[in-house]
Formats: sequence, structure tokens, C-alpha cells
Amino acid sequence: MQENKIIKLTVRDVRFPTSLEQHGSDAMHTDPDYSVAYVVLETDSDAALKGYGLTFTVGRGTEIVVCAVKALSTLVVGKTLKEIVSDFRGFYRLLSSDGQMRWVGPEKGVIQLATAAILNAVWDLWARVEGKVRNKPLKTNTFECAYMIAIKIQNEAILLKVAKKGQKNREEQMLKEGYPAYTTSCAWLGYTDQQLTQLCSEALAQGWTKFKVKVGADLQDDIRRCSLIRKLIGPNNTLMIDANQRWDVNEAITWVTKLAEFHPLWIEEPTCPDDVLGHASISKALAPLGIGVATGEQCHNRVMFKQFLQAAALQFVQIDSCRVGSVNENLAIILMAAKFNVPVCPHAGGVGLCELVQHLILFDYISVSASLNNRMCEYVDHLHEHFKSPTIIRNAHYIPPKDPGYSCEMLEESVQKHQYPDGEVWRAIEQQGKQ
Amino acid sequence: MQENKIIKLTVRDVRFPTSLEQHGSDAMHTDPDYSVAYVVLETDSDAALKGYGLTFTVGRGTEIVVCAVKALSTLVVGKTLKEIVSDFRGFYRLLSSDGQMRWVGPEKGVIQLATAAILNAVWDLWARVEGKVRNKPLKTNTFECAYMIAIKIQNEAILLKVAKKGQKNREEQMLKEGYPAYTTSCAWLGYTDQQLTQLCSEALAQGWTKFKVKVGADLQDDIRRCSLIRKLIGPNNTLMIDANQRWDVNEAITWVTKLAEFHPLWIEEPTCPDDVLGHASISKALAPLGIGVATGEQCHNRVMFKQFLQAAALQFVQIDSCRVGSVNENLAIILMAAKFNVPVCPHAGGVGLCELVQHLILFDYISVSASLNNRMCEYVDHLHEHFKSPTIIRNAHYIPPKDPGYSCEMLEESVQKHQYPDGEVWRAIEQQGKQ
Repeated sequence: MQENKIIKLTVRDVRFPTSLEQHGSDAMHTDPDYSVAYVVLETDSDAALKGYGLTFTVGRGTEIVVCAVKALSTLVVGKTLKEIVSDFRGFYRLLSSDGQMRWVGPEKGVIQLATAAILNAVWDLWARVEGKVRNKPLKTNTFECAYMIAIKIQNEAILLKVAKKGQKNREEQMLKEGYPAYTTSCAWLGYTDQQLTQLCSEALAQGWTKFKVKVGADLQDDIRRCSLIRKLIGPNNTLMIDANQRWDVNEAITWVTKLAEFHPLWIEEPTCPDDVLGHASISKALAPLGIGVATGEQCHNRVMFKQFLQAAALQFVQIDSCRVGSVNENLAIILMAAKFNVPVCPHAGGVGLCELVQHLILFDYISVSASLNNRMCEYVDHLHEHFKSPTIIRNAHYIPPKDPGYSCEMLEESVQKHQYPDGEVWRAIEQQGKQ
Repeated sequence: MQENKIIKLTVRDVRFPTSLEQHGSDAMHTDPDYSVAYVVLETDSDAALKGYGLTFTVGRGTEIVVCAVKALSTLVVGKTLKEIVSDFRGFYRLLSSDGQMRWVGPEKGVIQLATAAILNAVWDLWARVEGKVRNKPLKTNTFECAYMIAIKIQNEAILLKVAKKGQKNREEQMLKEGYPAYTTSCAWLGYTDQQLTQLCSEALAQGWTKFKVKVGADLQDDIRRCSLIRKLIGPNNTLMIDANQRWDVNEAITWVTKLAEFHPLWIEEPTCPDDVLGHASISKALAPLGIGVATGEQCHNRVMFKQFLQAAALQFVQIDSCRVGSVNENLAIILMAAKFNVPVCPHAGGVGLCELVQHLILFDYISVSASLNNRMCEYVDHLHEHFKSPTIIRNAHYIPPKDPGYSCEMLEESVQKHQYPDGEVWRAIEQQGKQ
């Protein structure tokens, strides 16, 4: 492998004005403008070879993450890819444990989101380089990534037996059928009942069988909306509900109990994402109703996930490709989930989250869990048009990506148009505001 | 009370080159440059009336916190002090739950440190205004703050009985004797044995009886240093040890067991600050040795403290004036600690942490815990000269501050000199680097 020295890191603040149409609205994020801190790495080996990475945000605050990426970039620029991947754990620690910067984390919040953006770009770069160097047709890049992850596991002697048996079959199954997905696009909190009915009917026609509804702002509204959706999808399709942290512990139990008649599979983010023991209480109270607790999109690192698993505080692990330290940390979380025999059902949506996380969940199925039982990956149908290799959904399944890399390269035109605050989209909005 | 509209918020990146002499060095922060994001609020009522606040950092990364303060400032400028304090809880939530910015937290890391800097300035402003308006001699500003906090408790009907009985006596006792302190200045990890011996002997001569030693990098070193200090201070003085998160759970238990012969009162930050259940295991294992677990300086919010208390994962609550959401959140933590009957022993040192936290610990004693048993406040003897009303230590006790406000107004000359990267101190260091 060539050394591939990283000679430049650029980061841009890219925002989409999704709040204008209430896409993505929930009980805590009432006006999100889906955004990313978008990182591009350049190397000295080949002008065309770049690594693309991002972290997802929801508008204001993206500039803080951009600032953090810039601060961390001094630890990246000048390193060779070879140095990085030959001690990827050490490199992760370099970013997360800088003797001065770790104070403003450690491994949480802004600095962790920035670490994810950078590491996603490094993984993308590595996947592209590997594909080139190994000089054989890539079946799919996902499996290429999985291959590298498997090597990493071996190298670091993580003592969990990875499911070897049947790996080949599962690989073929995924290429043919894809990984099961559920949709969150039908029932954002800000949508009217009419929108909800129309979107839900369309989704059913397209083959969707699993639906998530946002709840938590008003109980009567929730009852009306859940009742409407359950009627539309029938008793055999799957319904999940998501409160986005709106409640305290007892409120969560009372509220969800009142929605139990609609048979949701899980309640997602019932309370503060830091409250491991609170989630454990909620899990225990809702278990007799057949409702599990799902959380993870704001769970900031592997140590928090470890405790959620130890305390039986969740029944569905929702990994996020940008909240924790990229593939490195998600790998640890996937392995822990397998050890505790808890299904991984990733958080996705936003901008680029579906593109990224499909790699992780395919790896989980093919090489770790070997099961689809109670497993599915979130899908939200917007903003994919801004990516060079957007996710492919067929019959409500993620079809494994075939292009090299980690799938989050954006179209340069989209990036420029949506750069905040100077891109043309935002200049136009500012002009309208002045009129 | 006048409305006192906040018309301007400025924030500056102020760094002290402490790494040059290894002040503040520990097992995880080997080269800290003690720093602050320094906030000044101006009002429309009186040019001389300002609110001063800060959050502590250790060098690189301060610029990220400054960026976050700027992002949050739009939620502060334009508000009147009256609006804020008449619904202080609502104002706290406004800062911590902005529908877009909360994504990059919530309530943790950079955005929480920035929230603390702003709220510290608001509390300072409020204390100054109250002192003026009530137009009577302030005994000490601490008690003025305590008075306001007490009102707040009453308003929000927090159901904990605050110790009324004997309050007057404790107030007088504090004015006379001060609050017991311990010193961390003698035994930073980067100090030589000779430095350590000298500083320890000087501290003993000044009346110090409680000493903290940094450990965790090398066991043989730790044994040598602890043995040396225990010999110097004798069997009856108090020794604490601090690993600054260096170990994993089992390593912590093994390592501390080997230091048990030196009879430390506590082991501080034995492992990852997020690992509530890990700390619970360590607490359980060390209890038979008579060693407690202390943590909190990197515990990012009240929900984490709640779990530490619920899980019996700590025996000493180390509140920090800048890590969580200022007085508002520390109040909740102090009350929870009292409910669980666990002593509060604040983290201090850094820049301005002693100045701030003395108000909180005096409030704890006078109005909540009413006990000094196993209680003491950290003190580090440096950088106080940059403050307008530096802490006063007499016979190893914090003497209650008498100047109005929250005591973290810095000398403007110090701020200008140490502004990063353009202050003269940093320009000189840059010049030396070039030579």
C-alpha cells in the first residue's frame, strides 16, 4: 500500500432549509434545518483520490462543529493513511485524547461529532485506496469495508466470536434482497393528518411494512395520529413510536401505557439520552405491555452504550454513524450488542446518515449478528439527491452500495449552493426575509 | 428592580502558558495551558454595571467554546435581567434546549461549557444588581447569592427541606473561620520529588492538613510519591489521590489496592467519567479498604449526577462551577447530594474555579448540608492574581468573599495580555519558538 499522505483537510458548513416544510420535525426539534459539517481529505498520491466524510447536525450549531473539525485537523494533516490504519486504535485515541482538547469533551458533544466527520472521511479514503490497490473487482464496497473491519477485529484480538458460518450465503442474500428498512418519512410531528394519510398510503403501495410515528408533544394528538396510522397499515404491519427525549421517566411510562393499544414495537428516546437508569426503569415497566425501549442516536460513546446494555435499559440498539467516533466506535458497539444479544436497528435519515449506516448494518448482519430477527434500519426519503452514490431502496430494503468508498461524497454543486451562510439558497432566503 | 436589558455580550479566548512549568499536569492532561472563555455582559441601565462570567478549559479547544458562546449569545442579548430571573428555569431551558443547537449537545461538552460561561455572567450580574437595589449593606455576597437561591428553591417547590435551623450560627462561623480547603498545588504529576518535598513542607508550615496527589501514569512512581508524601504529612493528615480517568474499571481496582497502605481518603476519577456503573463497581471493591470514590469535574449534567447517586457510584460529589449549567444546575446537584447524604467536595483550581465555587460550597454548608463532616473544597494556588476579587485563604480555609458579584471578574490588563493568539504573552512565545 502506498503511504498516501494526507496533505489537506477542508471542512464546510452545509445546510438545507428543511424547516420551511417541517420535514424532520419532532417533539424536541421543532424547526430543524438538516445540515452537515462536510470534510474532504486530499492526499499527495493522486489528485483524484480524496476522502469524503460528514457529521449530521440540524442547523444552528453546525459552525461550532466546523470550528472543532478545524481544531482537530492539525492532528490529521501530515499523517499517512498507512500510519493511521496500521494503528487505527491509536489514531482514534490521538483524536479523542489530545491532552488539551479532551477537556471540552471528552468523547461527547461537539468534539465527538467533529471526530466522527474526520474519521468517516478517513474510512472513505481507506476504502477507496483498498479497492484500487487490491486490484480485483469489488463485489460491493460494503463487503470491502467489512473485510477491513474483520481484519481489524483480528488484529486487536477482540474476544467475540464473529459469525463465520454462512457468511457467504448472507452476503448473497443481501446482494439479492437487501437489508430490511422502515420508514420515518410518513409521520413527522409537524405534518397534518391529511399529509400523514397520503404519505402512508403511498408508502404501503411501495411495499413498506414498518412505520415510525413521532409522538410526545400532546397526548390526544398522539392517540389520534397513532390510531389513524394503525388503521391505515392494519394489524400485521409494524408500528414504532418516537418521543425524541420529551418526557421524564414516570411521564414516559404513563404516556406510553396510554398508547399501548396501538401495539408499538418500541418507544424510542422516551427520556434524556444520558439517563441509563431511567431507561432501565422504563424498560422494566413497559415489558409487560410488549413494548421495548430503543435509543442511541444521541448516545455519545461506547461507554454509555456499555451501560445501557449492562443495565438492560434498551431492547433495540440504535447506532448512529455520526454521533460516536465513526466506524471504530460503532464496531465496538455492534460487538457489545451481539454479546448481550440485543438487536441493532440503526438511526438514519438526516443528511447522509442512510448512506453511511447501511455499511455498518450490512456488516452487522453478514459478519456479526447473522440474524434479521427484530432487526431493521431506519430510512427517510429526502436529501439523497445531493449524494454522488445515494442509497438504493428496493421493496423497502437497502440494496448494498456498489460504488467504492463510504458513500457520503456529496455533489459539489449541492455543497456550494447550500453552504451557510453564503450559498445561493441561503442568500435567497435572506433576501426573502428582508422583503 | 430595573429591567436591565442585556445589550451586549463579548467573549474572549484567554490562555495562560502553564504547560511551560508543568503546573496542572496529570495522567491525562500532560501539558495543560489553563484557559478561559471569558464573557462580559453589558446592560442598558448603567455603563458601569456589567456581568462577568467564564468557563475553564486547558488550552486548545477554547476557541471552540468561544464559538459556541457566540452561537448562544443570540438567545441572551435583548433579554432583560428581570425576564431572565423571573423564569430562570425557563431561561436555562432556552439555552439548553434550542431546537437546533441542542443537537450538538444536548447539555454536554462544548455547548454545556459555553452555557456555563454565559450563566455564570448572568448570576454575577444579578448578584451585583440585587446588592445595589436592595440598598443595604451586604454582609457578604455569598449570602446574598444564597438568599436568591433560597428564593428560587421556594418558588419551584423543590421538595427538599433546606436546613433552616442554625443557619445564622453557620453564617457567623464561616465569616470567622472560613470553609475547610485542601491543596492540590504540591503534587502535580510533572513535579520532581524535590519540588514535591519542598512544596509539601511549605504547605504544612502554612497550616494545610489535606493534600491531593496525582497518580495513574506509573505504579512504581505512584508508590514512591505517595510514600514520600505520607511520610512528610504524617499519619493524621488527610491524603487523597487522583487518577484523572486514566484506568479501566479492573485496572483501577488493582492499582488503588496497591496504594491502600498510604490510606487515601478517596480515589478521584478512577476511570471514564461517563461510566456510572463502572464507578459503582470500583466503589464496591474499594469500600472494604476504607477508600471512597470521588468524581464530578467532568460529569456533564444533573442527570449523570443523579445516576451516580442512585447507583452508589461515588462517595464524594465533586461539583464544578463551569462544567455543568452554572448555579442553576449545581443547585440541583447539591440538593440531590443532600438527599442521598453524600458530601459535596467541589473541584476547583484551574482559572477562576476557586473564585466561583466558594459561593456554592458556602451555600451548601449554610443552607443545605449543615455539616462539615468529610467535606472540603479544593484549592490550587495559582493564577488568582488575575482576578479583581481573588479568593482569600486563611489557615487553609476559604474566607467568604465580600465584594459584590460572583467573583470572576478578571483584571482587564491580564485579559488583554493573555488573549489568544494575539495577546503579548502569546506573541512573545511565538517569537521564541521562531528563534
